[in-house]
Amino acid sequence: MARVHNYYAGPAALPLETLEAARDELLDFQGSGVSVMETSHRSKEYDQVHNETIELIKELMGLGDNFKVLLLQGGASLQFAMVPMNLIGPGQSADYILTGAWSQSAIKEAKIIANARVAATTEKDGVFRSIPKQSDLELDPNAAYCHLTSNNTIFGTQYRQFPDTNGVPLVADMSSDILSREFDPAPFGLIYAGAQKNLGPAGLAIVVIRNDMLEKVNKGLPTFLSYTTHADKNSLFNTPPCFTIYMTNKVLNWIKKRGGVEAMEAENIAKGKLIYGAIDGSNGFYRNNIPHKDRSLMNVVFRLTSEQLEKKFVAEALEASFVGVKGHRSVGGIRVSMYNANGLDSIKDVVDFMNDFAAKNG
Amino acid sequence: MARVHNYYAGPAALPLETLEAARDELLDFQGSGVSVMETSHRSKEYDQVHNETIELIKELMGLGDNFKVLLLQGGASLQFAMVPMNLIGPGQSADYILTGAWSQSAIKEAKIIANARVAATTEKDGVFRSIPKQSDLELDPNAAYCHLTSNNTIFGTQYRQFPDTNGVPLVADMSSDILSREFDPAPFGLIYAGAQKNLGPAGLAIVVIRNDMLEKVNKGLPTFLSYTTHADKNSLFNTPPCFTIYMTNKVLNWIKKRGGVEAMEAENIAKGKLIYGAIDGSNGFYRNNIPHKDRSLMNVVFRLTSEQLEKKFVAEALEASFVGVKGHRSVGGIRVSMYNANGLDSIKDVVDFMNDFAAKNG
Repeated sequence: MARVHNYYAGPAALPLETLEAARDELLDFQGSGVSVMETSHRSKEYDQVHNETIELIKELMGLGDNFKVLLLQGGASLQFAMVPMNLIGPGQSADYILTGAWSQSAIKEAKIIANARVAATTEKDGVFRSIPKQSDLELDPNAAYCHLTSNNTIFGTQYRQFPDTNGVPLVADMSSDILSREFDPAPFGLIYAGAQKNLGPAGLAIVVIRNDMLEKVNKGLPTFLSYTTHADKNSLFNTPPCFTIYMTNKVLNWIKKRGGVEAMEAENIAKGKLIYGAIDGSNGFYRNNIPHKDRSLMNVVFRLTSEQLEKKFVAEALEASFVGVKGHRSVGGIRVSMYNANGLDSIKDVVDFMNDFAAKNG
Repeated sequence: MARVHNYYAGPAALPLETLEAARDELLDFQGSGVSVMETSHRSKEYDQVHNETIELIKELMGLGDNFKVLLLQGGASLQFAMVPMNLIGPGQSADYILTGAWSQSAIKEAKIIANARVAATTEKDGVFRSIPKQSDLELDPNAAYCHLTSNNTIFGTQYRQFPDTNGVPLVADMSSDILSREFDPAPFGLIYAGAQKNLGPAGLAIVVIRNDMLEKVNKGLPTFLSYTTHADKNSLFNTPPCFTIYMTNKVLNWIKKRGGVEAMEAENIAKGKLIYGAIDGSNGFYRNNIPHKDRSLMNVVFRLTSEQLEKKFVAEALEASFVGVKGHRSVGGIRVSMYNANGLDSIKDVVDFMNDFAAKNG
């Protein structure tokens, strides 16, 4: 079958040329005579991939030497636990800003492990439709950190501007919009991201930790669950997920070659204008009720006028080679996930389809 | 470059046909128009891979319905912590049998988390040269479990017969010899294995847990760190390492097609006879001081008469396309790792090389 347009929310589309490059050397990695899946994580071939991946993340995110990059396993879900285990000291509490299902999961884990409180929530009747304003935040000035989810894949909202926490370190789950736009990393004590949306295949979690946070990590933790372990061992304490890191390396090089995060952001803004323009210009055929300033440029969610019509939309999209547009099972509707690997051309195609579908069914 | 003989200790050689199959469908998985790395972990295509992998592990290991198979991340290193977190109840202790570096790591984690004691050790001056005899075990009849490492990659020893613990559940790290030989799973409460030696690429850990152990899992653990979570969600609580599971699925099918674990065991025994025969027949040119009954059929370690000669051996082996024969950095010497994917022919070739090298340098 020909390659299709892939709008899955994650695992998600990868740049075609990274897949082609992996295919072409899958049996013989850089003339080593073995697959990158078969080489020792202590070999010089893998070592180069590992260290370049870390350097590329630092370079593309504009991180100074006051940050360390860790390559871990267990996805964001394990970070929901590792963050409070490592960073909430005895007698301390952490603040959580709730903007969707993933931030709810994050605070649930924090409360199992230590003390955590809600600094703000936009939840109403189980649904989250916006990002809180600065004035809505009730911040604890003594909090170990203030946690947020930068982009909400299920509800289709995204931080445009990060909150001012008056010196309390921000901790962010950026699983679904890392490397999609530029931002100042200075206020962030820790950033984590599962790879399977904007970075590579599933099975890798990136953790960026500021050195002053690393110094504050709780002692006495199980070795694998302490950030100190992985920082001290350059993420080679145990066998890393080598192939996933190798694919991520290819995606990072692809981003760099295309002009870095600045270029990604420009294209993501253009993609957003196009698809939200089509929604807003459909005379109510497509509906997205999120305040414009909070709309996600990664996951565009919308409803049609009936569930029946939504089913028809999903079925006809699939026939037209648009895969993965069904909304998350918890909320229904339509979702077009457009991470970096889905370029402007791909979004033009889906918008053409949307306009045609509206004309025929409106 | 042509494919070489790969004797890395892990990540290690994979069956060539599994790599070829992955390469051929890397851009289009089963006619879906996307790579298996790009498909949702909730898609019907991935779902089939996931469930078949679990079923194949049960089938190949001969597990009844009283066992559950979990597909996790974090390798054996995370299991060193998860096992005691989940299975040592309040006031309980666990027994550990020490036979090498990995069992030492396992008990270190257990002691961070709960109470653990050494039931036996074969350590002498920092080196482990054997597996303890049944009569050497000082077992705690009330232990939550008795932990062992079935094969020791660094010291080249392996359990031929598992100990009798008089009803105390065995817990085994089988990372380096899972699916290499048949055994009765009944006495095992839990078995875990990092995939990157006998199962697939790095980034996946298999956990086999008996239902009665699952019922005893401690409450109040962080969600990701509880076996209950993954058992209840069929290892889809969070995004699994899909591509690693997909490759493991291919290896499992390869084992099944070749006659299952029974056939693997017969070939592994033949490989062992060949290479240990060459060592023992070398008139002391190659030396392996491990009692014959405890010799590993997975990692064959040996010394030459000087470190200089060992360096020459490694260098000439590399020239002759034998990669990865250097012993672990902590012990030196030579190590030939011969997991399932390295067939008898490959071992014949390395034995020919060994005989030639001995003839020229003896």
